[in-house]
Amino acid sequence: MTDTRDPSRRGFLTGALAIGGGFVAARAGAETAPDPAITELQPWQQYLGEGVDARPYGFPSEHEAHVVRRNVPWLTADATSSVNFTPLHELDGIITPNGLCFERHHGGIAELDPGSYRLMINGLVDSPLVFTMQDLLRFPRENRVHFLECAANSGMEWRGAQLNGCQFTHGMIHNVMYTGVPLRLLLEEAGVRTSAAWILAEGADASGMTRSIPLEKALDDCLVAFKMNGEALRPEQGYPVRLVVPGWEGNMWVKWLRRIEVGDQPWHHREETSKYTDLLPDGRARRFTWEMDAKSVITSPSPQAPIPHGPGPMVLTGLAWSGRGTIPRVDVTLDGGVTWTEARMSGPSFDKSLHRFYHDFVWDGRPMLLQSRAHDSTGYVQPTKDALREIRGENSIYHNNGIQTWAVNESGVAENVEIS
Amino acid sequence: MTDTRDPSRRGFLTGALAIGGGFVAARAGAETAPDPAITELQPWQQYLGEGVDARPYGFPSEHEAHVVRRNVPWLTADATSSVNFTPLHELDGIITPNGLCFERHHGGIAELDPGSYRLMINGLVDSPLVFTMQDLLRFPRENRVHFLECAANSGMEWRGAQLNGCQFTHGMIHNVMYTGVPLRLLLEEAGVRTSAAWILAEGADASGMTRSIPLEKALDDCLVAFKMNGEALRPEQGYPVRLVVPGWEGNMWVKWLRRIEVGDQPWHHREETSKYTDLLPDGRARRFTWEMDAKSVITSPSPQAPIPHGPGPMVLTGLAWSGRGTIPRVDVTLDGGVTWTEARMSGPSFDKSLHRFYHDFVWDGRPMLLQSRAHDSTGYVQPTKDALREIRGENSIYHNNGIQTWAVNESGVAENVEIS
Repeated sequence: MTDTRDPSRRGFLTGALAIGGGFVAARAGAETAPDPAITELQPWQQYLGEGVDARPYGFPSEHEAHVVRRNVPWLTADATSSVNFTPLHELDGIITPNGLCFERHHGGIAELDPGSYRLMINGLVDSPLVFTMQDLLRFPRENRVHFLECAANSGMEWRGAQLNGCQFTHGMIHNVMYTGVPLRLLLEEAGVRTSAAWILAEGADASGMTRSIPLEKALDDCLVAFKMNGEALRPEQGYPVRLVVPGWEGNMWVKWLRRIEVGDQPWHHREETSKYTDLLPDGRARRFTWEMDAKSVITSPSPQAPIPHGPGPMVLTGLAWSGRGTIPRVDVTLDGGVTWTEARMSGPSFDKSLHRFYHDFVWDGRPMLLQSRAHDSTGYVQPTKDALREIRGENSIYHNNGIQTWAVNESGVAENVEIS
Repeated sequence: MTDTRDPSRRGFLTGALAIGGGFVAARAGAETAPDPAITELQPWQQYLGEGVDARPYGFPSEHEAHVVRRNVPWLTADATSSVNFTPLHELDGIITPNGLCFERHHGGIAELDPGSYRLMINGLVDSPLVFTMQDLLRFPRENRVHFLECAANSGMEWRGAQLNGCQFTHGMIHNVMYTGVPLRLLLEEAGVRTSAAWILAEGADASGMTRSIPLEKALDDCLVAFKMNGEALRPEQGYPVRLVVPGWEGNMWVKWLRRIEVGDQPWHHREETSKYTDLLPDGRARRFTWEMDAKSVITSPSPQAPIPHGPGPMVLTGLAWSGRGTIPRVDVTLDGGVTWTEARMSGPSFDKSLHRFYHDFVWDGRPMLLQSRAHDSTGYVQPTKDALREIRGENSIYHNNGIQTWAVNESGVAENVEIS
């Protein structure tokens, strides 16, 4: 039996020596300067910590205080109609913690009282209905993991803004497990008339956000959701109820959902005419570009996540997703597209969900041009930005799913670059 | 085109009428008293809310302030060596939000500085090694969802404590997506000697928690994890690094992991001798009861989640899990086991993970005796408490996976009961 309390053993363990040929780790007992983190008893080993009554609802370590959503004040006139960004470079796996899901508001965070919450279904239905929260909880529920991406994610990169970090270039996305009632069940309860072809989803916030959605999608996989990652929706994500429109642009996932109107044609409201359409070079506009195209981004290394060590074994990681299915494959390149390697996927592969990829390799210490390229389950391959611009020009804000490049220098510092 | 702003439409919508034969929802325009939640503009529709700069790290709605971990002060002498409980009755889906994962500490919450964090591997290895956080991040990572259940979960029910709610009877469990390095890779880096058969995992908290784990398990599916649900581990869950021992009792998932010693036999430390063994009626003790047996519980209705409405359509829901695989099937009974119905599973089915089940039915308003019964992928079926007691007696604290019963009365109020 080994006495793990023998203080002489701590003295035996002394600091940091790289192991040739393997991963970098200190060899215990090596002839280098003692590492006080090993030789000295740490404060957390000597004193009792807080008890189980200290944190009824927990929060991150103070050492993680930099892991936050960030907004860009110059982007909009006012923070109540603006966006902030998920810190993708600090996250791993595929679940976004609720506190870090990016926000996009048109009238600020509506703070609803769930006791006064009502959801109305009206229009081309046999019985207009009004549901309370308790009513909704009496319908059969489903649980599904889906990404929500703002159509404007990466929008500033169209003209080469080159924002310095994937939080800002790709951070208008999050991925959580939703619990909700299929919208189909509520529409069936109201009785959709045969002339119906569209719904209008309306929010209860001060902006009265509305979007037209084809009835076919509404009856297919939309959820009237009240939980995210197990707990109630967060206020900034539509508490108590939001619409989930899997694979389609985030603006359609109406938050604080108060009304579903059933109609026979689209409403052509603000958010589907002056906004969320893409002006093409010839003056025409793409409209009803609902599905989010396959896309990927390397989250580390990246401008906010430089390589913190010298040459040797390292992990490159990123996210890939498609509004049309799953991601069976991601390619990565370290040399700006001269050679591509298939990345290692790890974690669940859900329909219309983030996928996590890794590339484990030995860095030779030379500069790199990092890119990732997603393949989705329909066979579609993520295009270059130039290929997109050739077709769609540079008037667009929305639906930039082009390949992103990070240039990494000898020091491991990464920056956002464009290469042809 | 419909003008959703026409105030006369709001006047048309008036309150609450049950629809015969269908789900309960108000029929808009019915001849009942006006519902001010519909007829009157709500404050959140009239005023701008907080902007995107208000919540860098988000938190739940104030209306959800009751959804918290709770401890039981009379259970232990001190809150630093105690437990609190996940509010299972308030959650849905299978992901536990990080802020609500139950806690069990032996010396309080150790608050480690990740800069001073070190993980040592020593004992029967070719090269004793010490890893910094940065070292660990250079090894290939995996993402997996697993439940962590305290061996003492439901322990007080052995002798019929009948705690009043699934938070207290079954709430020493949580389920998150972990990101970490397979322990196998770190052990291979150190070079495990052929005489090795066990590891000892040691925590860096003031209790110096240790557990012996067979080398076979360590090399199979254990993770040295640093993320949960995408972000850094929470301090109370072992920040910056904990051991993940899928399917095995929570005490082995050593938090604030500081050392892995490799040896040729178990250490027989406190947590595997005086604790975490089950005293049988004949005076002998079961030891090395690592795997968590298949188990389930109905989370709603339950004592903390009564039925808030009268007879009619309703949702019964709960969780099921097994340390030996997946849960292909859960049965539920409304009459104390006279008749059983197969529940509807919804959400992902991961190995050694929580599974969510539902039973959607029409309540006739009469009293019910609710039970659930899990079947795992090995064919094992969750036993009754009496069947367990027959074999193991009533000296046990750990590994009670017996069927739980809630008695629901005509008012929808549920209580914890035992039936034979």
